[in-house]
Amino acid sequence: MQRPYNFSAGPAAISPEVLSLAASEMLDWHGSGMGVMEMSHRGKEFISIYEAAEADLRELLAVPPQFKILFMQGGGLAENAIVPLNLSRAATADYVVTGSWSDKSQKEARKYCEVNLAASNTDSQHTQLPDPASWQLSRGASYVHLCSNETIHGVEFHTLPDLAALGSDAPLVIDFSSHVASRTVDWSKVGVAFGGAQKNLGPAGVTLVVVREDLLGHALPICPSAFNYKTVADNASMYNTPPTYAIYIAGLVFQWLKRQTEGGLTGIAAMEARNIAKAELLYSAIDNSQFYVNKVALNCRSRMNVPFLLRDESRNDAFLAGAKARGLLQLKGHKSVGGMRASIYNAMPLAGVQALVDYMQEFEKQHA
Amino acid sequence: MQRPYNFSAGPAAISPEVLSLAASEMLDWHGSGMGVMEMSHRGKEFISIYEAAEADLRELLAVPPQFKILFMQGGGLAENAIVPLNLSRAATADYVVTGSWSDKSQKEARKYCEVNLAASNTDSQHTQLPDPASWQLSRGASYVHLCSNETIHGVEFHTLPDLAALGSDAPLVIDFSSHVASRTVDWSKVGVAFGGAQKNLGPAGVTLVVVREDLLGHALPICPSAFNYKTVADNASMYNTPPTYAIYIAGLVFQWLKRQTEGGLTGIAAMEARNIAKAELLYSAIDNSQFYVNKVALNCRSRMNVPFLLRDESRNDAFLAGAKARGLLQLKGHKSVGGMRASIYNAMPLAGVQALVDYMQEFEKQHA
Repeated sequence: MQRPYNFSAGPAAISPEVLSLAASEMLDWHGSGMGVMEMSHRGKEFISIYEAAEADLRELLAVPPQFKILFMQGGGLAENAIVPLNLSRAATADYVVTGSWSDKSQKEARKYCEVNLAASNTDSQHTQLPDPASWQLSRGASYVHLCSNETIHGVEFHTLPDLAALGSDAPLVIDFSSHVASRTVDWSKVGVAFGGAQKNLGPAGVTLVVVREDLLGHALPICPSAFNYKTVADNASMYNTPPTYAIYIAGLVFQWLKRQTEGGLTGIAAMEARNIAKAELLYSAIDNSQFYVNKVALNCRSRMNVPFLLRDESRNDAFLAGAKARGLLQLKGHKSVGGMRASIYNAMPLAGVQALVDYMQEFEKQHA
Repeated sequence: MQRPYNFSAGPAAISPEVLSLAASEMLDWHGSGMGVMEMSHRGKEFISIYEAAEADLRELLAVPPQFKILFMQGGGLAENAIVPLNLSRAATADYVVTGSWSDKSQKEARKYCEVNLAASNTDSQHTQLPDPASWQLSRGASYVHLCSNETIHGVEFHTLPDLAALGSDAPLVIDFSSHVASRTVDWSKVGVAFGGAQKNLGPAGVTLVVVREDLLGHALPICPSAFNYKTVADNASMYNTPPTYAIYIAGLVFQWLKRQTEGGLTGIAAMEARNIAKAELLYSAIDNSQFYVNKVALNCRSRMNVPFLLRDESRNDAFLAGAKARGLLQLKGHKSVGGMRASIYNAMPLAGVQALVDYMQEFEKQHA
């Protein structure tokens, strides 16, 4: 039987290759007599899993040596507090609001520092991205926060802003939860990048934080030790017991990513090419139809999260039921925006997007 | 092949029944076409997993209705900050220091409130527990913190203190990470109980918090939203994306616990009887030997974590190598106390403890 295609926004589809390998090793990892869940995080078996995951991720994302890779807990919403607890120095931080996630971030940060709303796309209902040249950055900000892909509204910065060129010497903090590992990262523009794993890296319960070393050691005194970036970095993410199994699965995803090839490209570059092709296929189908609509401006459409509406919303339930019957799962849009959303992360093959497009066209023919 | 016996202090052994079932469902949970890791936490499939886990745990531990069960992240060390952030009201909290974990707790709490050291067993090198009648409790404390089983030092409160009888009206907060579900809980004495899952409940990465409802809603303004007990409770542990797979595995462990029987007892009562028998077997073997020693006072020896020393410590490496060759894994003691430690949580059968005792006696005969 063809496995269904799962368009969940997160937790999200994982390659069946990864899941099959994990299932086969569940009771005995590499002849150790233990499953990965049962291993001490300080034993040589798990340490080897951890170190391979970290090295593979560093290679995949080309993370420079002056950045630390941390595996933490709490997801993006916890980081909304953890970032200002570590970086704000109780001064002013700049926030760019481009959708639900960045808006939650700026609200949480107000507990710990002054927040300057440098820009917002609320007037456009989060369908356009404010041009960085128009941002009102504050002088001496501790950092500038950006959600580089908004999972709910489906807007993505395809290029990261160059803060130095905009006259700011603050580090850029990006929440890249929902497009990490879908494309390359220009680390020269980044101070901290964080993301929950449950979209593109593996299971919910582990948070990736990539932090430039000069930003360590400035936490507020009230920062919990378990969430102090320096404490976590100094202890190789083992100050508290890390989410070992989630890190192991993420490590298997990293190995899977390294094996991917596409037109002569490998790893993240291969995924990026594939993601561009997938997104073009789906957006074209929407734009060429009189039946479906995506309202996001062309230059900032997310390659990962494609929200779309049926022009006749009374057909939503029928659309979802028919999709499920065809093995196209979890297409219902976020409750705050309604309609549909197809999340087409790395683990979604082009064939899955093609199957969705075929279904959309068939449904349109039946109901137009 | 006989599966090895794994004495890890945590992450720790999980029943092979649980692991086998999880492996079989890895790619397709109950015909949903999705693995549990791939499900939206807001979909009906995962909600059913979550609700069953919560209901089973409530039944197993006989948690009264006026307590909320929360599934959080960060483990016990994160709770060391999260407890005072939620409960201290920036006033004074009483701490009872009985080993490494409670000592870490009181140090972390000082970031958020005044700490009164009500009692300490440091003078005895954490081998005896201070009699509650001797505790110097403060008037009007926000709470009294106790680590009811110290994983490293192997001391356990076999009965929880009755704070009201000691003249305190403060709620009792217990860190029961390393003996949760090994015995029944007298909830009439408890305000909050918390524990990392990675000893007796499942994989690392999920933290159980059981909190009495009247203690919700008093968090300090600086408490991160993701760690505010009231926010977590109001959102049924889904304010942020929960560690879904870890909760699923814990749920399978709860079902396994419900199936356990021992001499007419079921569930936790069965486990408690079995744990008493396992501990008696191992402590007797140690006490009846001239070769091994456990220094903890008889009345407070942990049934879960049994640290012991070889009187001739030059034989430690040989002991560990011989154990590993016999399929007795992860017996090395914590680096801060040295020697050996056998953690004999719920998933360790009596046969495993018997195999350890047999090996210890054989090793003693060879080397005495």
